[in-house]
Amino acid sequence: MKFNDYVENLQNYEAGKPVELVVREYGVKEDDVIKLASNENPLGTGKKAVKAIYKMAKHANLYPDDSMFELKGALADKYGVSEKNVIIGAGSDQIIEFLIHAKCNENNGILTAGTTFSMYGIYAKHAKAKHFSTASKFHDLKEIKELYESHKDEISVIFLCVPNNPLGECLDAKDVIKFIKSIDDDTLVVIDAAYNEFASFKDKHKHIEPAEIVKLKNAIYLGTFSKVYGLGGLRVGYGVADEKIISALYKLRPPFNVANLSLAAAVAALQDKKFIEKTIKNNFKEMKKYEKFANATGIKFIKSYTNFITFILDESKKSSEISQKLLEKGLIVRDLKGYGLNAIRITVGLPKQNKRIFDELRKLLG
Amino acid sequence: MKFNDYVENLQNYEAGKPVELVVREYGVKEDDVIKLASNENPLGTGKKAVKAIYKMAKHANLYPDDSMFELKGALADKYGVSEKNVIIGAGSDQIIEFLIHAKCNENNGILTAGTTFSMYGIYAKHAKAKHFSTASKFHDLKEIKELYESHKDEISVIFLCVPNNPLGECLDAKDVIKFIKSIDDDTLVVIDAAYNEFASFKDKHKHIEPAEIVKLKNAIYLGTFSKVYGLGGLRVGYGVADEKIISALYKLRPPFNVANLSLAAAVAALQDKKFIEKTIKNNFKEMKKYEKFANATGIKFIKSYTNFITFILDESKKSSEISQKLLEKGLIVRDLKGYGLNAIRITVGLPKQNKRIFDELRKLLG
Repeated sequence: MKFNDYVENLQNYEAGKPVELVVREYGVKEDDVIKLASNENPLGTGKKAVKAIYKMAKHANLYPDDSMFELKGALADKYGVSEKNVIIGAGSDQIIEFLIHAKCNENNGILTAGTTFSMYGIYAKHAKAKHFSTASKFHDLKEIKELYESHKDEISVIFLCVPNNPLGECLDAKDVIKFIKSIDDDTLVVIDAAYNEFASFKDKHKHIEPAEIVKLKNAIYLGTFSKVYGLGGLRVGYGVADEKIISALYKLRPPFNVANLSLAAAVAALQDKKFIEKTIKNNFKEMKKYEKFANATGIKFIKSYTNFITFILDESKKSSEISQKLLEKGLIVRDLKGYGLNAIRITVGLPKQNKRIFDELRKLLG
Repeated sequence: MKFNDYVENLQNYEAGKPVELVVREYGVKEDDVIKLASNENPLGTGKKAVKAIYKMAKHANLYPDDSMFELKGALADKYGVSEKNVIIGAGSDQIIEFLIHAKCNENNGILTAGTTFSMYGIYAKHAKAKHFSTASKFHDLKEIKELYESHKDEISVIFLCVPNNPLGECLDAKDVIKFIKSIDDDTLVVIDAAYNEFASFKDKHKHIEPAEIVKLKNAIYLGTFSKVYGLGGLRVGYGVADEKIISALYKLRPPFNVANLSLAAAVAALQDKKFIEKTIKNNFKEMKKYEKFANATGIKFIKSYTNFITFILDESKKSSEISQKLLEKGLIVRDLKGYGLNAIRITVGLPKQNKRIFDELRKLLG
């Protein structure tokens, strides 16, 4: 059987290894496995979300409310925008998919920083679109602008990951807004704010306000419930933008794209202020320990505005070997070799988890 | 902001109205609303699935196992095929999306019966593909074959909905197999078996065996957890086919396309033999009441192999008016006007629910 030519060129995302796999493949006891590879919330699921899931479980037979009335309303309220400015996706990934299909085709494409979230490029291939990326791995707005100016006719979507996954650096909000204003009206600038709650806490100048993005008409704000809200397993993300953009994306949305349990949990998670606060506080308290550990051990790291930290290894150590050795001990971290870096990305976990990482890394790198 | 031209031509699926909406818009008490519009399982969610959801709720923070090891294994065991023959989707809809993108493009397209599941046509538009459909509303294999022969170069996917949604008729399995064998190796025949568990119970000649489909190399079997398994809200479906087909579809699969709660519930639902049996028994016991009611009231109906029944109204009654009047009473059924039929499709519910339908319909149609 033959398939469309472009299918062969598609790439799949390399997912973090799940706990079950480490148990199966390395015989580590489930309780001894520590997964700090996918930037999940180490505190688990918030109480309010768990309660909402319990309540909805017996209605798992009913299709979700396809208007997503409650969650869209809750997000619109939170951000002071209209429900018409909001679209919900199966993770913010799905909004990325919609907008690339809405804007890109084989004659144009996307522009990104040198090293950023890999799904941008993966979905660009789905639309047979081009992918321009800067020589700089980090987001350098000057360089992004130059590349845009020199390939304007071929660029229809620009991604800014604020803060950037998998590196951790973060643009200032005022520079982001200035940048969007300098871009043509017909080019969509995507502000991927999956980790912005963390960045905003660390430094208020990093805070992106969705309502401001809505006003700009050529930009969209993407948020997710997978990180600070602790619902990575449930696949809920959202986009906030001018109504015209949202309407176009809606055309591409399949029905019932988010499960009813996921919608209910997201509505509850949004209200769980205590859980969010606890998550962010643990994150930056523990982040300091990572920085201290790195400094003490002579490991280079990227100052992070997220819930993970990226350690750059020196040439004598291979990131893939280090990750593999950690894996065999039941510690799952993310090797960034696939991103062209000799580095590992570690999610900031609970104190006990982080201590185990330090102990093992000290043996391997010290 | 401009978008790709094809976006404007895309259609959205018309979802059944959710209970919450009827409460909001018509002021009917929630307990008085009966939703028999979306062919959901009227028995609710099975106990085993609910238990699995409870158990997984606290892990909602963790991304799903992207290999879907457990559910793929359970399905492979059930059907006596390899895990390499199985792909899991966010509903079987998503597998339809993958296969249309894998096979179709602007130079070719899909072939369907005259009146069948609308998502086939909706996804064809996403791929800018053509849509051929027979003059017959029902599946007529002779007519489908003739249309195929006369447009062979333009048809890359043929859909057979066995049994057919939204009409209810069902092809014999042996005719389906014979048909697939008569089609060129490079044309993919999709056996949408979303309701096949119901048809198989009513008449064993309607039973499609996935392992047989796998052997054929140019066909795929689609199943869902939304109907007999009672998990419509969780968005889990699957495809079973030759490994080469599954590999190609995998290229199009986004990571984490099914929530972890959904995967866990599906694994449990698959084992819940009692719930499945109870579901099917209630369905056909109550279906008889619908047939009896229709005969007594002089309403024409299509003999159904599914969990719904389609009533064809005579010209003096408009299906949209009847549906609207039922809606105002809190009874949600599916108006088939959008399918070009003066008919309503009613999910077979619990005895009490069905009685309310009969009582109201008697007033409106009697």
